[in-house]
Amino acid sequence: MSFESLWADQSAIGRDPETGGYTRGGYTPTEREATHWFLDQCATRNLSVESDGIGNLIAWWEPRREPADRPAPGAGGEHTPVDAGAAYRSGVSDPTRRSGASYPTPAGEPAGGPAARPGIVTGSHLDSVIDGGAFDGPLGVVSALAAVDRLRAEGFEPGVPIGIGAFVEEEGSRFGMPCLGSRIAAGVLSADKALQLKDRSGVGLGEALEKAGIDPAGVGPSPLLKRMGTFVELHVEQGRGLTAPVGVASSIWPHGRYRFTFGGEANHAGTTLMEDRHDPMLTYAMTALAANKQARLAGARATFGRLSVEPNGTNAVPSQVTAWLDARAADTATLESLLAAITKQATERAERDGTTLEVTPESVSPIVDFPAGLRDRLADVLGGAPVLPTGAGHDAGVFSDAGIPTAMLFVRNPTGISHSPAEYAEMDDCLAGVDALAAVLKDLAK
Amino acid sequence: MSFESLWADQSAIGRDPETGGYTRGGYTPTEREATHWFLDQCATRNLSVESDGIGNLIAWWEPRREPADRPAPGAGGEHTPVDAGAAYRSGVSDPTRRSGASYPTPAGEPAGGPAARPGIVTGSHLDSVIDGGAFDGPLGVVSALAAVDRLRAEGFEPGVPIGIGAFVEEEGSRFGMPCLGSRIAAGVLSADKALQLKDRSGVGLGEALEKAGIDPAGVGPSPLLKRMGTFVELHVEQGRGLTAPVGVASSIWPHGRYRFTFGGEANHAGTTLMEDRHDPMLTYAMTALAANKQARLAGARATFGRLSVEPNGTNAVPSQVTAWLDARAADTATLESLLAAITKQATERAERDGTTLEVTPESVSPIVDFPAGLRDRLADVLGGAPVLPTGAGHDAGVFSDAGIPTAMLFVRNPTGISHSPAEYAEMDDCLAGVDALAAVLKDLAK
Repeated sequence: MSFESLWADQSAIGRDPETGGYTRGGYTPTEREATHWFLDQCATRNLSVESDGIGNLIAWWEPRREPADRPAPGAGGEHTPVDAGAAYRSGVSDPTRRSGASYPTPAGEPAGGPAARPGIVTGSHLDSVIDGGAFDGPLGVVSALAAVDRLRAEGFEPGVPIGIGAFVEEEGSRFGMPCLGSRIAAGVLSADKALQLKDRSGVGLGEALEKAGIDPAGVGPSPLLKRMGTFVELHVEQGRGLTAPVGVASSIWPHGRYRFTFGGEANHAGTTLMEDRHDPMLTYAMTALAANKQARLAGARATFGRLSVEPNGTNAVPSQVTAWLDARAADTATLESLLAAITKQATERAERDGTTLEVTPESVSPIVDFPAGLRDRLADVLGGAPVLPTGAGHDAGVFSDAGIPTAMLFVRNPTGISHSPAEYAEMDDCLAGVDALAAVLKDLAK
Repeated sequence: MSFESLWADQSAIGRDPETGGYTRGGYTPTEREATHWFLDQCATRNLSVESDGIGNLIAWWEPRREPADRPAPGAGGEHTPVDAGAAYRSGVSDPTRRSGASYPTPAGEPAGGPAARPGIVTGSHLDSVIDGGAFDGPLGVVSALAAVDRLRAEGFEPGVPIGIGAFVEEEGSRFGMPCLGSRIAAGVLSADKALQLKDRSGVGLGEALEKAGIDPAGVGPSPLLKRMGTFVELHVEQGRGLTAPVGVASSIWPHGRYRFTFGGEANHAGTTLMEDRHDPMLTYAMTALAANKQARLAGARATFGRLSVEPNGTNAVPSQVTAWLDARAADTATLESLLAAITKQATERAERDGTTLEVTPESVSPIVDFPAGLRDRLADVLGGAPVLPTGAGHDAGVFSDAGIPTAMLFVRNPTGISHSPAEYAEMDDCLAGVDALAAVLKDLAK
């Protein structure tokens, strides 16, 4: 099936007719529909799908020829893929079979048998931010399916298994934890902590899993990773850093999320003299402008995109403004000096306003340097593709930190817009991405 | 009963033990408890309480001596006050009697009979903003009870009825409509529009009324106003405009609420170059600072206390920021030029940011000039009390606009803090307020 048809098919799922955007939070109906679509595609291709306790999926294209250095896993010497998609579908229509036979083969007993070999995994995620774009995530999954089709059409026989992964809740738009699926899988987020997460409606992760036919008792480090010898994620670039159609990632920038709590004094908006106020909104406003200025000076990024105001009444000077700073820079030193510069300006303004400021780091991720050897091999295979860092977090970063050799391919983003219905990539660039991914898989799985 | 005891009693109702503040939205349990307390106090004093369809209350002290110019309304020539408070209390404990006998005598058939005469009404409101102070509202009601006690203790016999009013949802903190009770009563807010109001939990006004034992079918212009010959509201001052213990209001400043909608482009906070962004948060931040500066220059007030951000995600450049400007000035020309100056700076910044701005007036109230004759009479009675305007809206403004001769007394606010748990007035100033109110009632009702 051509990439164009696959893309048209997949990107029709859950598109908001008004905004043109997608809201596919983890385990929501639209995200599940996209997941069912993926399982159907895997079934059509006779790929054997394995799942883990949080709902991550890997669909395996097992090699026909047995490796010379190990015995055949089964009596027949060949693996017969399980049509997990069909089982899943039948399970969905039969509620009594939901949590058992309905879900793809649990990875604890890999479809390839206990001796199943580590492979080359590609793929990405099918979830989105709230009213996000079509490409962030799905492009990597659809390109992976198209690349497998391409390799099969060429008659390529992989020497090691090739897996197509779809990892859940990468954006964290439902449960507030980015890379939820990969973090759980890698064991950097515990099941206890994860099962305390709730969405904006108060629905817990466990309840959401159950509703999706997944037993919350299985949440924990994923056996899927045992078969992930190498991971290559293809993703749309999210700035304007790439001028060629396809590039290779060098690193993921260090990234901090900091809660700025501005405290003041609630007061009457009509009667309180301007000079008698201790208005935390003013301190916040100056801080938001300072963050923008300092990020420009540092060649970094700083964003205040989330805010909570108390009491949030039109006729009340606020008692408190809480604002979340998202800051990223090319290296940790720059990130730290950016935060220091913003905090300094905010503190000075707080003194003038008679307000208070508390800065609480909520999460600070160090730089992810993708292994140079793998990165250079990919760039070579692609005839000297450009190598560039990214400011965005990815499952690839989590897997790389977990010690799995990991690389990323980027497809050009002509506008730099992402996390928006206006996110876009040219079809020719997407096709170049499929070519590149096919070439890389061919090289790594030969 | 002394003012001190009444005050201690009333101000214990619904005080948040953590903040020391009050959250008495209209018809909420704490506001109802304060209302029950008021009815009990009225019953103790043999005042006949009348209510209207929205739950406003006036407790009448009817004159003993009949006026020379009209016949006695009843056979005995004297009015026997109804113990409405007792009826209300019994109704509360008997759900079957809630909407009928349980509520105070409907004002359609005034307790004083069809010939009941217009009187001098004082009072204020018992509701509060969210986490507000003790004085804003209740001081006027408690001072009225104490003033009536004082006059009775002195043996004063009013020549016309003296009423103590408690008007509902003055702050609009539950249903978003300030002076809800007085606006409905005066017919400037229609029943249709009012019954469409919902609180933050989605509870409609009609449902809230029913729960409070009030039949929503009765919402509409209030017969209570027929007996309101003059209205005098005592209120804590809310700035630092008053240096004497007690003052008299000249006017209520013109007041506008404007919705500023800043539109931008949602984008990824990690990858989008600072120079590629169209971030409405920056345009808003500069506008908030401009509003503060322009208000200082104009000797006016401008506040951004309420904000809504889309999508309000830490890792997303917002697509939209909606902010509500509360602006007030001594006259309409100043208010208009203040709004123009803020809008001009905001528009210029929006051009630089590549964002959009739409300014929508949600409500603009012209100045309320209290009648000069009544105002001067009060200032004279009080031995030349200072006369000052206020930036705050009040039921007194609504009644004045409705053509009822209206005045206000202010009690000094030493800190200027209001709409906050820290709102405060000295006990000596409160007692001076009771003295002043008693003197004014004595003068007007003689």
